[in-house]
Amino acid sequence: MQKPSIPKGMRDFSANELSRRRYVIDVIRGFFERYGFSPIETPAMERLDVLTGKYGSEGDRLIFKVLNSGDFAGKVPEDVWRTKDSRVLTRYLSEKALRYDLTVPLARYVVMHRNELTFPFKRYQIQPVWRADRPQKGRFREFYQCDADVIGARSLWADVDFLMLYADVFNALGIPVVVRLNNRKVLAGLARVFGLEDRLTAFTVALDKWDKIGREGVEAEMRKAGIENERIEALRVLWDLPSGNEARLDFLGGLLKDDEDGMKGVLELGFVLEHAGKAGLGEAELLLDVTLARGLDYYTGSIFEVVARDVSMGSLGGGGRYDDLTGVFGLKDMSGIGISFGLDRIVLVMEESGLFKHLEKPVPRVMVATLGDAERVFGQGVLRRLRDEGIAAEAYPGEGYKMKKQMQYAAKRGIPFVLIIGEDEMKSGRFSLKNMTEGSQETLDYDEIVRKLKS
Amino acid sequence: MQKPSIPKGMRDFSANELSRRRYVIDVIRGFFERYGFSPIETPAMERLDVLTGKYGSEGDRLIFKVLNSGDFAGKVPEDVWRTKDSRVLTRYLSEKALRYDLTVPLARYVVMHRNELTFPFKRYQIQPVWRADRPQKGRFREFYQCDADVIGARSLWADVDFLMLYADVFNALGIPVVVRLNNRKVLAGLARVFGLEDRLTAFTVALDKWDKIGREGVEAEMRKAGIENERIEALRVLWDLPSGNEARLDFLGGLLKDDEDGMKGVLELGFVLEHAGKAGLGEAELLLDVTLARGLDYYTGSIFEVVARDVSMGSLGGGGRYDDLTGVFGLKDMSGIGISFGLDRIVLVMEESGLFKHLEKPVPRVMVATLGDAERVFGQGVLRRLRDEGIAAEAYPGEGYKMKKQMQYAAKRGIPFVLIIGEDEMKSGRFSLKNMTEGSQETLDYDEIVRKLKS
Repeated sequence: MQKPSIPKGMRDFSANELSRRRYVIDVIRGFFERYGFSPIETPAMERLDVLTGKYGSEGDRLIFKVLNSGDFAGKVPEDVWRTKDSRVLTRYLSEKALRYDLTVPLARYVVMHRNELTFPFKRYQIQPVWRADRPQKGRFREFYQCDADVIGARSLWADVDFLMLYADVFNALGIPVVVRLNNRKVLAGLARVFGLEDRLTAFTVALDKWDKIGREGVEAEMRKAGIENERIEALRVLWDLPSGNEARLDFLGGLLKDDEDGMKGVLELGFVLEHAGKAGLGEAELLLDVTLARGLDYYTGSIFEVVARDVSMGSLGGGGRYDDLTGVFGLKDMSGIGISFGLDRIVLVMEESGLFKHLEKPVPRVMVATLGDAERVFGQGVLRRLRDEGIAAEAYPGEGYKMKKQMQYAAKRGIPFVLIIGEDEMKSGRFSLKNMTEGSQETLDYDEIVRKLKS
Repeated sequence: MQKPSIPKGMRDFSANELSRRRYVIDVIRGFFERYGFSPIETPAMERLDVLTGKYGSEGDRLIFKVLNSGDFAGKVPEDVWRTKDSRVLTRYLSEKALRYDLTVPLARYVVMHRNELTFPFKRYQIQPVWRADRPQKGRFREFYQCDADVIGARSLWADVDFLMLYADVFNALGIPVVVRLNNRKVLAGLARVFGLEDRLTAFTVALDKWDKIGREGVEAEMRKAGIENERIEALRVLWDLPSGNEARLDFLGGLLKDDEDGMKGVLELGFVLEHAGKAGLGEAELLLDVTLARGLDYYTGSIFEVVARDVSMGSLGGGGRYDDLTGVFGLKDMSGIGISFGLDRIVLVMEESGLFKHLEKPVPRVMVATLGDAERVFGQGVLRRLRDEGIAAEAYPGEGYKMKKQMQYAAKRGIPFVLIIGEDEMKSGRFSLKNMTEGSQETLDYDEIVRKLKS
């Protein structure tokens, strides 16, 4: 006998949990399609060499590698085997790995299928990814990403569209959000203006931690990275920007007026803010936030991040514009822009906010209870008719005809109605329909039952 | 530069392929729910010890193992390392593996969650599984299984329900099928009657290959397994059963009249045939087939297999009744019954039969083409209104306003309508709507456009 368990950081999902997840996915997918994106899917496994080196050395470590099949050890050269060095051995023992995100598989997909695709290529993808990360609240080793990207397009209207899309999805889900917006050209310009052009990465990496460690933490981080005290003092003007997106934009325009590329970033921000604002974002708030940096180096224009206004949960999604998605696979000049939704955190926020109350339990609408063999035979015909009407229906699946047992099953499972068939009911064609929520019972004919169950 | 590729036996799915797969999944899921099943999902990875030993030694070999993270080699004892024996090393290098089917994860799920579940437990599960099998037509290393099971129920009505479910799904998909039906108790009884009680496995394993190697092949297989010629000759009465399910049932009843357990199987077959027949299976044909054995040892009652009537594609699904799903994990007496649909082969059959013709292309309904900056701004407002109406709409996502380029994009992507916005259109509020399929063009106001696009 073996007591089974489940791998660390991974989850089973019950019907209730799945109905929540499916609801959120359906909303996201619905808007992806309404905005003109078409789906793709890629395999769970990619070649290890496709993934390696794309996520930094920390990322490489967190990729789940798949052990080669067959006599994997026999294929490792003797001298490599003797080192017993896991870092070196990995590429001899593993040729495949599990998808770490949806971006690198997208780049691989675009390069491999470029002759079949219509550019600009608008794709969305909703699939799980796997990371050997340390599990914690809202962070799992298997989780879903929901991504949409436009590949091969430089138009800023895509940036506007993505902000509208974020607003539409979160408004539909009922989550009040703040969409933080910044621009990498502005960050690069600021680095230059503050004499940090040779330390852009240190500057943005420190800035990116603002959410987690706050202003003092970021300043300490910068000091640790060798940024001089007087420069940090000068930077403080950024921490105390005027409030209001327009005032901030003006202020940044003043700071960057002599920096051509930085000024381009300011104009991009201005365009996106103006037109997304005009389109109307409902409850969603758009916030120009110069401390938003996003870790990933490949962003070159707009960067986005979504946080819940009323629940502390970290980022519910993010994205941005990039110039070179596929260069590493030999296809140059594929610029684009994309955003991602973090399904698991969205579900957590909605649970904490009680936003799933309207969801129906994922159980059949009615259970047929019968009092004997003849009734059970008759009941199978009733089931046939109910199901043909599109009503989810089952007979009590256990053995025997004890009414108490049948009712207990229906109640425990949360089935809202029980249709009772006895001898009289078979003769008269009128059945008792018990409403399990209210405890009430009615005698109805077949058409009335169908109407009732469909309402 | 690196030329990317995809692992052997795995597939990317384009929007067109996904819309077919999603269509089939939605039909299957719809009927699962209509029959009272609730969904679960389990993680892609299971602990290796949960999977090992459940699929035979050949199965164990085909499980994809996940290499441990960190310094995996350092944790292998020196003497084990020195053997360089892959079979021994596997359990030191890998603690997790990819889901090989949905049955063992179900057993693990039932045991771990038994205190939260309502029994009989009716679950369905639609997820990919992975097998390091040699790829061939209709066989991939990553493929979807769609399973439904009732756990903890002995009632034969579940068998009847599953036959109705198979018929409903394949009728809805438009695939004429034969559902082959047999019973393991009958097979065991026949083995006893023909003096093969000590060679039941050899008998059923040979029988199971009937589809692939035919009558002569099966007989040769039996000879190879040491079954005597005179016994094989006696068995031939089974190969030439009368046609018609009732006649066959009578014949089997005669053969097994003195074998109590075998006779029980005959009665079960009779019950299931009678009531499934009464329920009406439409186009689907039910065939009592004594050569159907199914490889898996754990079946103990009804066994099913579905094949397409007009397309040669092997099994599109199968299943059966079992007595002990969870014993290996320490939970005794969990009998049940389940069936599976093979998504990939179903899609292949439907493609070969032209059954996807009615599916709409998964692209936006309309593209907005604009002739300049002012029109593009105006167009964004039009998009907002269209999307609020639930119409999938996009503006041309590339740069510039060349009409030819915009039209080429819409045509290439297969977008059915293009809405053209120029200076006049902005003033008049009447727009040109081009039907890309017919090549026709109309001038319509906003409400007319919405009506047209929704129809």
